[in-house]
Amino acid sequence: MQPQQYQMGGYDRAITMFSPDGRLYQVEYAREAVKRGTTAVGIKCRSGVVLLVDKRVGSRLLEPSSIEKIFKIDEHIGVASSGLVGDARALVERARVEAQSNRITYGEPIDVETLSKKLCDHMQTYTLFGGARPYGTALLLAGVDIGADGKAHYRLFETDPSGTLLEYMATGIGIGRQAVMKLFEEEYKEGLSAEEAVLLGLKALYTATEGKFDMNTVEIGVAGEYSKKRAVKKVVESPTGSTTQILTFRKLTADEVKSAVTKFSKTVKSDEKAE
Amino acid sequence: MQPQQYQMGGYDRAITMFSPDGRLYQVEYAREAVKRGTTAVGIKCRSGVVLLVDKRVGSRLLEPSSIEKIFKIDEHIGVASSGLVGDARALVERARVEAQSNRITYGEPIDVETLSKKLCDHMQTYTLFGGARPYGTALLLAGVDIGADGKAHYRLFETDPSGTLLEYMATGIGIGRQAVMKLFEEEYKEGLSAEEAVLLGLKALYTATEGKFDMNTVEIGVAGEYSKKRAVKKVVESPTGSTTQILTFRKLTADEVKSAVTKFSKTVKSDEKAE
Amino acid sequence: MQPQQYQMGGYDRAITMFSPDGRLYQVEYAREAVKRGTTAVGIKCRSGVVLLVDKRVGSRLLEPSSIEKIFKIDEHIGVASSGLVGDARALVERARVEAQSNRITYGEPIDVETLSKKLCDHMQTYTLFGGARPYGTALLLAGVDIGADGKAHYRLFETDPSGTLLEYMATGIGIGRQAVMKLFEEEYKEGLSAEEAVLLGLKALYTATEGKFDMNTVEIGVAGEYSKKRAVKKVVESPTGSTTQILTFRKLTADEVKSAVTKFSKTVKSDEKAE
Amino acid sequence: MQPQQYQMGGYDRAITMFSPDGRLYQVEYAREAVKRGTTAVGIKCRSGVVLLVDKRVGSRLLEPSSIEKIFKIDEHIGVASSGLVGDARALVERARVEAQSNRITYGEPIDVETLSKKLCDHMQTYTLFGGARPYGTALLLAGVDIGADGKAHYRLFETDPSGTLLEYMATGIGIGRQAVMKLFEEEYKEGLSAEEAVLLGLKALYTATEGKFDMNTVEIGVAGEYSKKRAVKKVVESPTGSTTQILTFRKLTADEVKSAVTKFSKTVKSDEKAE
Amino acid sequence: MQPQQYQMGGYDRAITMFSPDGRLYQVEYAREAVKRGTTAVGIKCRSGVVLLVDKRVGSRLLEPSSIEKIFKIDEHIGVASSGLVGDARALVERARVEAQSNRITYGEPIDVETLSKKLCDHMQTYTLFGGARPYGTALLLAGVDIGADGKAHYRLFETDPSGTLLEYMATGIGIGRQAVMKLFEEEYKEGLSAEEAVLLGLKALYTATEGKFDMNTVEIGVAGEYSKKRAVKKVVESPTGSTTQILTFRKLTADEVKSAVTKFSKTVKSDEKAE
Amino acid sequence: MQPQQYQMGGYDRAITMFSPDGRLYQVEYAREAVKRGTTAVGIKCRSGVVLLVDKRVGSRLLEPSSIEKIFKIDEHIGVASSGLVGDARALVERARVEAQSNRITYGEPIDVETLSKKLCDHMQTYTLFGGARPYGTALLLAGVDIGADGKAHYRLFETDPSGTLLEYMATGIGIGRQAVMKLFEEEYKEGLSAEEAVLLGLKALYTATEGKFDMNTVEIGVAGEYSKKRAVKKVVESPTGSTTQILTFRKLTADEVKSAVTKFSKTVKSDEKAE
Amino acid sequence: MQPQQYQMGGYDRAITMFSPDGRLYQVEYAREAVKRGTTAVGIKCRSGVVLLVDKRVGSRLLEPSSIEKIFKIDEHIGVASSGLVGDARALVERARVEAQSNRITYGEPIDVETLSKKLCDHMQTYTLFGGARPYGTALLLAGVDIGADGKAHYRLFETDPSGTLLEYMATGIGIGRQAVMKLFEEEYKEGLSAEEAVLLGLKALYTATEGKFDMNTVEIGVAGEYSKKRAVKKVVESPTGSTTQILTFRKLTADEVKSAVTKFSKTVKSDEKAE
Repeated sequence: MQPQQYQMGGYDRAITMFSPDGRLYQVEYAREAVKRGTTAVGIKCRSGVVLLVDKRVGSRLLEPSSIEKIFKIDEHIGVASSGLVGDARALVERARVEAQSNRITYGEPIDVETLSKKLCDHMQTYTLFGGARPYGTALLLAGVDIGADGKAHYRLFETDPSGTLLEYMATGIGIGRQAVMKLFEEEYKEGLSAEEAVLLGLKALYTATEGKFDMNTVEIGVAGEYSKKRAVKKVVESPTGSTTQILTFRKLTADEVKSAVTKFSKTVKSDEKAE
Repeated sequence: MQPQQYQMGGYDRAITMFSPDGRLYQVEYAREAVKRGTTAVGIKCRSGVVLLVDKRVGSRLLEPSSIEKIFKIDEHIGVASSGLVGDARALVERARVEAQSNRITYGEPIDVETLSKKLCDHMQTYTLFGGARPYGTALLLAGVDIGADGKAHYRLFETDPSGTLLEYMATGIGIGRQAVMKLFEEEYKEGLSAEEAVLLGLKALYTATEGKFDMNTVEIGVAGEYSKKRAVKKVVESPTGSTTQILTFRKLTADEVKSAVTKFSKTVKSDEKAE
Repeated sequence: MQPQQYQMGGYDRAITMFSPDGRLYQVEYAREAVKRGTTAVGIKCRSGVVLLVDKRVGSRLLEPSSIEKIFKIDEHIGVASSGLVGDARALVERARVEAQSNRITYGEPIDVETLSKKLCDHMQTYTLFGGARPYGTALLLAGVDIGADGKAHYRLFETDPSGTLLEYMATGIGIGRQAVMKLFEEEYKEGLSAEEAVLLGLKALYTATEGKFDMNTVEIGVAGEYSKKRAVKKVVESPTGSTTQILTFRKLTADEVKSAVTKFSKTVKSDEKAE
Repeated sequence: MQPQQYQMGGYDRAITMFSPDGRLYQVEYAREAVKRGTTAVGIKCRSGVVLLVDKRVGSRLLEPSSIEKIFKIDEHIGVASSGLVGDARALVERARVEAQSNRITYGEPIDVETLSKKLCDHMQTYTLFGGARPYGTALLLAGVDIGADGKAHYRLFETDPSGTLLEYMATGIGIGRQAVMKLFEEEYKEGLSAEEAVLLGLKALYTATEGKFDMNTVEIGVAGEYSKKRAVKKVVESPTGSTTQILTFRKLTADEVKSAVTKFSKTVKSDEKAE
Repeated sequence: MQPQQYQMGGYDRAITMFSPDGRLYQVEYAREAVKRGTTAVGIKCRSGVVLLVDKRVGSRLLEPSSIEKIFKIDEHIGVASSGLVGDARALVERARVEAQSNRITYGEPIDVETLSKKLCDHMQTYTLFGGARPYGTALLLAGVDIGADGKAHYRLFETDPSGTLLEYMATGIGIGRQAVMKLFEEEYKEGLSAEEAVLLGLKALYTATEGKFDMNTVEIGVAGEYSKKRAVKKVVESPTGSTTQILTFRKLTADEVKSAVTKFSKTVKSDEKAE
Repeated sequence: MQPQQYQMGGYDRAITMFSPDGRLYQVEYAREAVKRGTTAVGIKCRSGVVLLVDKRVGSRLLEPSSIEKIFKIDEHIGVASSGLVGDARALVERARVEAQSNRITYGEPIDVETLSKKLCDHMQTYTLFGGARPYGTALLLAGVDIGADGKAHYRLFETDPSGTLLEYMATGIGIGRQAVMKLFEEEYKEGLSAEEAVLLGLKALYTATEGKFDMNTVEIGVAGEYSKKRAVKKVVESPTGSTTQILTFRKLTADEVKSAVTKFSKTVKSDEKAE
Repeated sequence: MQPQQYQMGGYDRAITMFSPDGRLYQVEYAREAVKRGTTAVGIKCRSGVVLLVDKRVGSRLLEPSSIEKIFKIDEHIGVASSGLVGDARALVERARVEAQSNRITYGEPIDVETLSKKLCDHMQTYTLFGGARPYGTALLLAGVDIGADGKAHYRLFETDPSGTLLEYMATGIGIGRQAVMKLFEEEYKEGLSAEEAVLLGLKALYTATEGKFDMNTVEIGVAGEYSKKRAVKKVVESPTGSTTQILTFRKLTADEVKSAVTKFSKTVKSDEKAE
């Protein structure tokens, strides 16, 4: 925080005020709340989308399970959050209601993009009207849709406090975003397997935390297929015939996380040796 | 932004306040938000209206499809936006509802001018009442109406945060507006073909970005006819007999965009040679 | 605008605040918005009322038809506006609804004065309650009523942001008001023909713009009779027998405008010669 | 306006704030708006009450009829106003509705005092609650009631922005109030005829305008009898038998005004000779 | 008013703000409005309660009857007010509605204390919530109840802007309160006759105005019996048998007032002689 | 009040603002209003709870009965208050409605603790939401409940402006609280008789007023039994058989108060002699 | 509290304002209110969860039972609070209603986590909207659920003013939090018996108060089993057969508390000897 930031002429005191150069400072400050949050990353791969979060458990007395940063929204959609924890829970709750409401109204799962837009519309109204503040939270939404062609489409959306919505192949939010994006620009390749994507995600978290990354508290979610064994399949009817698709979002089990982290640790060590 | 702008005596702190010289500073600041947006241009031609936007994709990790700046509103109307992204999406959503509502109520497509006025009326109320801010977004609305004479009429409207509505033959919004308008004043001619209009639009974007224009991320929409092959025609009954009209708004396909850009690039090169 | 106006002690920050000398500064500032608007004039003549506006089309790319400053409200009433464009459109919309509502409720056209008062009542409430700003627009309402005597009465009302209503024989609003009023005080005579009134109106606009008046963009509306040929007549029943009256408000056609402007130009030239 | 008035410590910024000495500055400032208004006077006479207003028509282009400052409220009540014109019209409208509502509910004309109190109650609430400003208008209400004794009673009430109500034998409001009250204190006598009252009223306006009084723009209203010929009589049943009373409020015709002004002019001249 | 009162640190700007020493300045300032009002006194006597007010008629043109400061609320209750006139009328109106509502609901007159408490409850809410100001008015409520014992009980309550309610044997409000209370502390005796109470009240007003007391404008009201002749009696049934009680509140007639004032004047003169 | 308290950085201007050290200044200032109130004490004894208040009657003209500081809420509950008088009456009114509502809904008297909590809940909401101020009043609630065991339980609760609720054996509120609590800490013993409790209470008031205690204006209320003669008994059915309990709250009669005060005076004198 | 905290540039004046570095100061200040509260600790053990609070009874006149800091919410859930007492009671009331509402709607006890989330959602909305302040209270929720496996699961949640929810194995809130957490980090072991947990909790309170811990005012609650004798058991049906579980939350009796404190005191003494 730089002291001169305090000199914004007061245009930063309410969401209903533009500054002379057309900026909404309160929205930009809400983005700062996101930048102070834990790092979360999302990566598209051949058979799905992976989400990884560093939960930064500060005390051994905390139940790690209670610092949930990845939330299952519906059968086929999951969310990772960064920023104000209370705001994130409120948005997750809203997302779940939207998803259920879609199933009840239309008899089918909500589109990942539709859900993301609905959340962003909601967040945008908090930047338009006075009497409230913008949400101090960003979300990564990962999910899988069945297209008109009967095929599975993997989606990865990022929201921000202004209600802007962007789709990425690989992205990160929170305190480590800059380091993560630099890594992805250099190393991300399309067509990764889910396991490779998880390893890249772990590397990103490792980089973002400058090696202070605590392996035991990483949380991983996958939309689509991760390990053959546990894949939840579903027969989908389409004009081009019925196909079998993996449609589930799930969090990896403790064993799966451990195994991925172990594999990653070896890479790190061998890298260090190599140096 | 000039520092002395901060000295407006506080008349710029609320939309419900006029300054002593009768200005609404908050509306003017909202216009600044538009001026910071990506450049979008609209050009009327013989057989329709074309919209072009430079999407400025910053990172290779972004799915270009997610930075949508041209939106189809109804069968016969499209919109290009500049300014706050969340605000634009909210207005697009509103436009779609208005259009559908017109079809349901009157059994026919909404008039382009009627829709534009409805959006401007909505934006004007956000400059009249406190408790909210003006919209920080400008729109170009392009569409085609069937007049009482059974003929297609091509329309191109520009809105601004104050709710002002103007119809242009060729116009631009966003950061490159000034450069674009200068070019159009010099080079725009009535009676262009659709292809010529697209080339002029590409030149405008090229000029606005001082050559830093990234050809792969241009987005193009056309109301009316672009290529003979893909034209969607409709038989329209009118007092003077039934005629066939092209009534569709559509975004050009990747191939069409590529082909237009290639053609434009050649022109540039030959120009440079010529110099 | 004088810089010391900024020293009003803060009494000019809200419409709900009187200054120590009993003024409502926000209403006065809204009047400044009118004074910055395009010049519009209204003139009563023997057979009706004429409205003229200089549309100041800045760019050749603008469709002149889209800078509408004269609006038909109902069969027998038209309006010219000056000041904030969005506000004017909102008031015009309101006027149209009031007029239609009168026809539906009472089965007859609304009185010009009744309509004017309703608009002023509406504008006055925006000077009484907080949470909104006054309208930054003035209107000239021109129309024709059938009196209890079965005769046509021509009316010309001027509104202002405070909700004040005045009827004039000849008046002007907008940036050129002062020049226009001076001319009318000197040259207006009762009993002008409609054509003479239009010529006087053109002279007023010419004067207001110090000769920079662009002849091609003048917009003219007439309540009552202008040219014999195009007059819309209506048989009106009254206690003193049925008579035929001209009851229509219409905008002059491009040809009529052109012809009037040509005639006016000759006068100017002959005047200049005379000097 | 004295500059030190700006030093009221901010207690004058809202109607919901008392100053340390128990004053409501915003109400006092609203009274200043009245003091800047045109002068209106009311005088009780033997057979009624007269109201006179100097309409101060500034321009020969104004239709004098449109600067209405005396309004008929009901058959038997009229009002003269001074201060903000838009506010006056809103109060007049309210008064008319109250009067009609009384006729519908009780089948008889509203009492002059009842109506005056209702208006004052309304004005008082605008001094009690925030979110609005007080009315910047004073009214003189003149009317005639039939008492329980079957006789006509002539009433003359004055309201002010605080909602205070006073009945006078002769009074004035607006810019010339001080001069008018001085004259009345000296020259008013009970038992004047209506014609004498009108002459006194003209003298008051003449004095208030320091001789700059424009005779052609005086507006005069009378509750009760003015000239025998035009008196509207009504048979009133009462315990003491039926009597005939003059119950009408009406504005004097142009001829009646002219005749009164002529008579007054002679007095002035003869006075001047006398000096 | 001391200038340093302006230095209250801003704790006096809203009714929703306590000062650090637990005071509500806005309520105290409202009390100042009362202290600037006309003096009103109330005195209990053997057979009732008397109210007296100095109406301070400034101008001979005022109808003295219109400066009503004593209001009849119901058959058996009257009120004298001091402070803001508009506020007083609003409270009187409220009191009348409460009284009528009690008769309709319970079929019997409202208790003087019940009515007083209801008014105070109402006034207290205006010291609790923002968006309004406290009432700037104090009331003296005088009335007579029939107790469970079938006897008349005479009551005299004083309210203040905070909603505090006190019952007095003799009290005063308004600008002369201090002088009045000093006199009463010295001279008031229980068991006065009504006539003696009126004389004491006149003396109090005389003292409060330092002899500038205008005898013709005193207004006097009596709850209970004043003169035998005019007493309105009512047979009251009670467990201890039926008795006849005087239950009326009435204003003294002009003659009664004149006679009392004359008697008082003699006392003054004889006192002056005695000195 | 220390002047530096004015330097709280503005965190004390609204109830919706915490100070940086987590305090709600407006609540603390409301407590100051209580500290400026008259002293009230409550003492539990063997057979009930006694409440005593020094009514501080300033003027001999006041009806002492009207300065009620002890209020009966229901058959079995009474309240003593200190602080803003209007606020106290509003809370007492609310307490009575709650008590009656309990009898109507459940057919039995409200629990003393339940009632106290309901009042505190109400007061707490006035510390949570803006647009109002906290209550500037503290209450002592004294009452008697019949427990599940069929026995009478005597309760003494103290509320404060924050909505905090505490039960005491002996306590005091208002200006003399500090002196009272010191006395009780030293002299209060459990198992006092009601008469001893009243004597201790009188001593507390005597101490709090530094001997300036006016014996004639003490007000005393008792929940439970005070004198055998006047005890209101009630047969209570319970699992352990029916018992007779004293359940009434009542104010002591003038005679009882006099007798207690006389007895206390003797103690004081004998103490003084002893010194 | 450091004086420079007052220099936060005003970003700490409303909950609807982010600071330039993305913080919500009002939420942080509400946390300060918690830090000033009494210390409460919660500890998971083999057969349940224990809660302990130091009630800090300041005066011997207070009924210790009235300073309740541990509240039973439902059969199986209890709560300990720290911070603003009134806020705590409001949240406890809300929790009880939620719990009852769950039983009525679903016919079964509410999940501890579900209840905790509902409370946090409620608290989060008070950080999002203006017009209110955040809650100045933290809660420890201790309870026992029957899982899908028919087994009892012991839960211990901590809430804070932002609506953040965390589950701990052992934790503390209030003024002694830092000392408590340090002790638990060093000495807490999983698998403690309930009695060992209580002893650890007493040690924590003892440490937090630096030995000034008053043994008589400790309050202890247990979810699950504490002493065999008093355990409330319930037969639970599950897929794996019916089992008997202890499901009750209860506060320890005075005897149990005394016995635990005695045991603890001996440990302290032996420790001191050992030193």
